[in-house]
Amino acid sequence: MARADIEELGRRAKSAARELATAGGAAKDGALRVAAELLEERCGEILEHNRTDLDRARRDGATDVGVDRLRLTPERVATMADSLRQVAELADPVGEVVEGWVRPNGLRVERIRVPLGVVGVIYENRPNVTSDAAGLSLKAGNATMLRGSSSAADSNASIVGCLRDALAKVGLPEDAVVNVADTSREAAVQFMQLDGMIDCLVPRGSHSLIATVREHATVPVVIDGDGNCHVYVDAAAELDMALAIVENAKTQRPGVCNAAESLLVHESVAAEFLPRAERALSGVELRGDEASRAILPTIVAATEEDYATEFLGPVLSVAVVADLDAAIDHIARYGSGHSEAIVTTDLRAAERFCREVDAAAIVVNASTRFVDGGELGLGSEIGISTQKLHARGPMGLRELTCVKYVVHGQGQVRR
Amino acid sequence: MARADIEELGRRAKSAARELATAGGAAKDGALRVAAELLEERCGEILEHNRTDLDRARRDGATDVGVDRLRLTPERVATMADSLRQVAELADPVGEVVEGWVRPNGLRVERIRVPLGVVGVIYENRPNVTSDAAGLSLKAGNATMLRGSSSAADSNASIVGCLRDALAKVGLPEDAVVNVADTSREAAVQFMQLDGMIDCLVPRGSHSLIATVREHATVPVVIDGDGNCHVYVDAAAELDMALAIVENAKTQRPGVCNAAESLLVHESVAAEFLPRAERALSGVELRGDEASRAILPTIVAATEEDYATEFLGPVLSVAVVADLDAAIDHIARYGSGHSEAIVTTDLRAAERFCREVDAAAIVVNASTRFVDGGELGLGSEIGISTQKLHARGPMGLRELTCVKYVVHGQGQVRR
Repeated sequence: MARADIEELGRRAKSAARELATAGGAAKDGALRVAAELLEERCGEILEHNRTDLDRARRDGATDVGVDRLRLTPERVATMADSLRQVAELADPVGEVVEGWVRPNGLRVERIRVPLGVVGVIYENRPNVTSDAAGLSLKAGNATMLRGSSSAADSNASIVGCLRDALAKVGLPEDAVVNVADTSREAAVQFMQLDGMIDCLVPRGSHSLIATVREHATVPVVIDGDGNCHVYVDAAAELDMALAIVENAKTQRPGVCNAAESLLVHESVAAEFLPRAERALSGVELRGDEASRAILPTIVAATEEDYATEFLGPVLSVAVVADLDAAIDHIARYGSGHSEAIVTTDLRAAERFCREVDAAAIVVNASTRFVDGGELGLGSEIGISTQKLHARGPMGLRELTCVKYVVHGQGQVRR
Repeated sequence: MARADIEELGRRAKSAARELATAGGAAKDGALRVAAELLEERCGEILEHNRTDLDRARRDGATDVGVDRLRLTPERVATMADSLRQVAELADPVGEVVEGWVRPNGLRVERIRVPLGVVGVIYENRPNVTSDAAGLSLKAGNATMLRGSSSAADSNASIVGCLRDALAKVGLPEDAVVNVADTSREAAVQFMQLDGMIDCLVPRGSHSLIATVREHATVPVVIDGDGNCHVYVDAAAELDMALAIVENAKTQRPGVCNAAESLLVHESVAAEFLPRAERALSGVELRGDEASRAILPTIVAATEEDYATEFLGPVLSVAVVADLDAAIDHIARYGSGHSEAIVTTDLRAAERFCREVDAAAIVVNASTRFVDGGELGLGSEIGISTQKLHARGPMGLRELTCVKYVVHGQGQVRR
């Protein structure tokens, strides 16, 4: 696929986006529901394409985890279809009058929610991202340019086929979902540089993908970044609650970005709390500083790098801190700005933690695992942003839109 | 200035930003007012530094326009001081509870407005940007890293001195405003790549500066882009009103981004309107398509490039369009997404224009010149964004902040 072909796809998506921007909610929801039906109807076909991907992945020596991420099953396809139906049920964000006022000279100013235009998604593995991302983007009135990984090429193409056919069936432009079939690195870089065509690029994948996007993207980007999330157990924590929260945050689903990666314990409760935490976290490797190893002598020593690492697995770094300030400093130094929790009954400690910790989400007396579009009540999400511009935290429908000013006058000119 | 020095400045700004994020409004406003006083007190000194810049600029063969942009006068310094005082009067955006709700499981979710952290500003010429940008950024609780052009180096340094001294006087960290004194291109590129230090970069300047930022920046950017703004005179326009609006939009201040650069006229009123427009716009060079030249035979032929150009001067491209669709298509093709105006008494035409034209601001029956932070009632602005992410249109105090989630629980864990 030459650069010209990718640009041509971009132009088609941009043209479809213009049409989609004024499409009614009923048409968009209809497309989502028809796409869900098509996914179910063509499940056998999709699984066959998926087998091609799986066979190739095995031949190429993919890990078991990699193969599992790639695998579709009838259940997984049904979940994809259900997700599209759920998105159809959400309220249409487009057209919302966000705010409005009248100026002294009579100008009436409104800020109106409108689609972004073309949303680019570059992602790895998991074929369900194809329908999840395109569905959410469509609901927000955007055209979507998808660029999945080579490993999932056949699965992605068959899912994109369902989405495009659904758009056509309800009379919307099928180019509202386009797939960049070229999975070369060159094509990826060209994709990230479609200035004037992609209004927002969302990368979903590994560190190396994110790094490539940071280095090469010239279009506006929302980074779905790392989650090096901490749970801080304060001097005034209820220790039973702290234990339940740490266990949940670390082990309920260790492979996701809102799982805890680091435990900070106030020195006044460390001697009591850490042995209980060690028992509760059996199966999790703890890596601690000197003070925590004085209490738990069998755990390994944590390196500087351990504190900066998002393990995404059964490892937890541990540090004993002298006070709240030390906890906040530790998080400022090592945190990735995703989700940071405190367990405490001390109002002032909670208030300071909320104010002074700089992250997309601060959680008081609950598990970091709640930092998720669905759990926070936003509906579906396309990722969790750790950057500060535009979207911070779960990136739901609203974050897939922007706002325009509409100014009504009666002939006013400026003096 | 080596890369290490710029990084050290970034670290200092980042550290100051942490402190500033929790500073009270009274301290920030105090710093702004003291800075205003210092600008006035040290006006003579500032003008002396400015003379050094002016002399160098003349030696280097700067144009008269360039020299004028660079020039400070007692009045201009007084205006800078007044601007800081006005910013101090604005409401503090930090701490606003943007929205909040309770989840079925009892989790209380709030979205709280917080500072961005470190705002980077890279700009050319005009030394007043130094205090305007830093003042607005400070009010929003951000540290500011400034990187002005070599031409204004001495002026900028003396203004930054006032700001830093003011911060110190009220007990805020003086590194909340830092100046990258190295005005080399290498330093500019390093500045744009201070990942993890600059939370938002705002470039203000020429096309070439914007292009450099697009190409090299790895930090999040808000582009203050071109304004290729159109006024469309509809079939149902009141022609007197249209004339006043076109004249105002083109000539009231032609050198700014919200001035009109292109006039589109419905064919049914072109024969009547265009000769009147030509008379009203004496001193403005009109460049037209065939249809408009059939009515105004003495004007020059517009090229494709003319329609795509932000003249920022006494030139206006003109086209006669067959209908509203043609006007909307023309704007989609040539517009830069800044401000687009329609003059009409036809409700359906106004509604379609508002809905279908994709720009930061749509203006109905008023001059494009109102698309400005002050005129729209946002207070001061740091620029007008033509991108869709984060800030679209005038970038005021609120656009210099972001939002974080604060979630309060009573021990909830996820099942």
